[in-house]
Amino acid sequence: MPQQDRAYATREAILHAAAEEFDRLGYERTSLTAVLARAGLTKGAFYFHFASKEAVASALIDRQSELWTQVRETWRARGVDPLSALHGMFAESADRMAADVVLRAGVRLAADREIGYPGVPSTHIMWEKLIASYVVEAGERGDLRPGVDPDAVARTLCGAALGARLISSATTACADFPARIREVLGYVLPCVAAPEWKLSGSQNTADGVTEA
Amino acid sequence: MPQQDRAYATREAILHAAAEEFDRLGYERTSLTAVLARAGLTKGAFYFHFASKEAVASALIDRQSELWTQVRETWRARGVDPLSALHGMFAESADRMAADVVLRAGVRLAADREIGYPGVPSTHIMWEKLIASYVVEAGERGDLRPGVDPDAVARTLCGAALGARLISSATTACADFPARIREVLGYVLPCVAAPEWKLSGSQNTADGVTEA
Repeated sequence: MPQQDRAYATREAILHAAAEEFDRLGYERTSLTAVLARAGLTKGAFYFHFASKEAVASALIDRQSELWTQVRETWRARGVDPLSALHGMFAESADRMAADVVLRAGVRLAADREIGYPGVPSTHIMWEKLIASYVVEAGERGDLRPGVDPDAVARTLCGAALGARLISSATTACADFPARIREVLGYVLPCVAAPEWKLSGSQNTADGVTEA
Repeated sequence: MPQQDRAYATREAILHAAAEEFDRLGYERTSLTAVLARAGLTKGAFYFHFASKEAVASALIDRQSELWTQVRETWRARGVDPLSALHGMFAESADRMAADVVLRAGVRLAADREIGYPGVPSTHIMWEKLIASYVVEAGERGDLRPGVDPDAVARTLCGAALGARLISSATTACADFPARIREVLGYVLPCVAAPEWKLSGSQNTADGVTEA
């Protein structure tokens, strides 16, 4: 393996080992010693790539943030209606998180920095605004029931996704997160969408991709 | 003040001061020194009432647990239909938590012990089972839409309530929790209840008590 590839592989091994620990224990309780033992690396190898535990955590947070941008752009490019895009993004995010500990750890770290301590939870506010913008757009197309409040729908979905992830993580290491997210969508979207609205686009499922 | 009343008042002052800290910072980051400073008490006064920080936390957890039993029994005694009782219990719980830091801290402590760390989250599983039993009962009375899965409804509501509490706590110290819980109920129950079902019973609101 050329030296550059080896360096890349080591960096990925550190990120993966750290993600395993962060995902289970959160930032505070994760020890660098446990991460190194899991990755089979020395402190020297670690510090060649990252300045601190905080730096690995930031790399994981950045990675999940980049992925969400990519998921949003993919759904935007598919040209489906806003509520179907919302459904697709939620379901795809849950599928990816159940399958990928690196992503899951990044999401947990981003949320844990904000939830549970005083301060402004900018990530959740950003998500609420983003979801609300899809619901507003759905309203402009006539896809909503009368009286639906886009901000209230956004708060409901955002909170429900957070709670589902936390309970799913504590009970099944997020294995049932895809099913829980689809339950949330199944018991909220029919109250939001006009009776004529139909789910469209390729909707990922835990088993693969299904044309809805 | 008789000695017994004074002892009771001191114990309550400790619980309240500890609740203020636990509610903001969680168990780990709360220091006994900050609790004592807030209550204006010495370590001696504290240890007369509680053996440790852990003991105060347990007292707060027990207190919220007793209150939920009481809220459940009150709604049971009102003789309203199961979905209305579920709505009433959720709304009343949110109102009480927004108004009472002692209760809020107990709820946070109980949840934080389970959420975020590996293990069995018995409180959330207990809540999911309890909510499911109300939905099953609603089904037996013909109050559900066809195809509604009581366990899925319970998972959705339980997760949505947890997420709503965490985001509300991080953004408004739970001031908007009553409104968020009502939004959740408003966007979930119509997908669950048969079109003929109507909310009944005295439904508490953030402003007082309203006959629905």
